[in-house]
Amino acid sequence: MEERIEKQLAFALEIDKVKTIFRQTHLSSHGRNENDAEHSWHMAVMAYLLREYANEEVDVAKVMLMCLIHDIVEIDAGDTYAYDAEGLKTQKAREDAAKERIFSILPEEQKAEFTALFDEFEAYETAESKFVHAIDNLQPLLLNDSNGGGDWREHGVTAEQVYKRQGKTKSGSQKLFEITDRILQENIKKGNLKV
Amino acid sequence: MEERIEKQLAFALEIDKVKTIFRQTHLSSHGRNENDAEHSWHMAVMAYLLREYANEEVDVAKVMLMCLIHDIVEIDAGDTYAYDAEGLKTQKAREDAAKERIFSILPEEQKAEFTALFDEFEAYETAESKFVHAIDNLQPLLLNDSNGGGDWREHGVTAEQVYKRQGKTKSGSQKLFEITDRILQENIKKGNLKV
Repeated sequence: MEERIEKQLAFALEIDKVKTIFRQTHLSSHGRNENDAEHSWHMAVMAYLLREYANEEVDVAKVMLMCLIHDIVEIDAGDTYAYDAEGLKTQKAREDAAKERIFSILPEEQKAEFTALFDEFEAYETAESKFVHAIDNLQPLLLNDSNGGGDWREHGVTAEQVYKRQGKTKSGSQKLFEITDRILQENIKKGNLKV
Repeated sequence: MEERIEKQLAFALEIDKVKTIFRQTHLSSHGRNENDAEHSWHMAVMAYLLREYANEEVDVAKVMLMCLIHDIVEIDAGDTYAYDAEGLKTQKAREDAAKERIFSILPEEQKAEFTALFDEFEAYETAESKFVHAIDNLQPLLLNDSNGGGDWREHGVTAEQVYKRQGKTKSGSQKLFEITDRILQENIKKGNLKV
């Protein structure tokens, strides 16, 4: 019993580091860079509120938990920017090693559960995984749109690159893709996103 | 339909501000102050992992959502430190006004749902509310303990004050109170918490 709760609390302390992993996205009102804990929190609330738009019915507890833990591996693996072609090549190997080290702090069956949930997210096959990916795309889009597309400009990202990634939102939510498309078209029109 | 999703997205953008509300708690490894979004994320993951220690069986989706939204009112009301006697006197009025303004951005039935969930948290009566309060106490305790009790020292907080607040953890989780008591006793012994 004591060993069990000690492992759980050690994991709770370990994941505090998620708050120090910064992303390329900036907070609204031209704020500072966002970190993974904030991003995950924001996604979980958005996923709950927007679940009616998932293409298939989803288990909302599973969706929220997937949002909350999907970036924990970045404690070791770091954040890989969506449009960093070199970083994306090594992302899986880095994240697999991180997953093994970090989830091993938990009691065995919770390690297995979190590992399976992370793998399910990565596999992009279940209704929950596809919907969480849709939210993972929409959340930074919303912030970036509110900041006049500053994150795209900073990295010289093109509309084609953004559509390639955001297009996958369709598989999780047709409706959220429609919203995404409208936001992207407005940003192209305003010159915030280059064609 | 469009009006509905526009309200939901406006709310999603509004709550980005939760990331700018800073608490008295510091991140582990003597880090910077923690903000409400990070705290809420951390609580939701901890609540999921530690739910077996709730005194009564809890609906874990409700628990996670309550963790995620319980501090949204602080966008307007600000963070009230647990040991700030003057601030605590006006906290309810400030938070009620904030609740009305912020949740009103949502479609009517989601406003009603979030308002009810926040009120349930505040009322401290249901199994879920008591357990979320236990986690709301334990999460900063864990960070503060990892930093040698720096947050208590900074504010000259006494063991009696801490026990008065943390003692309520018992109503949500006897087991988490036992852990809390052990951590507090160790900090008293080390001189991190004055008696």
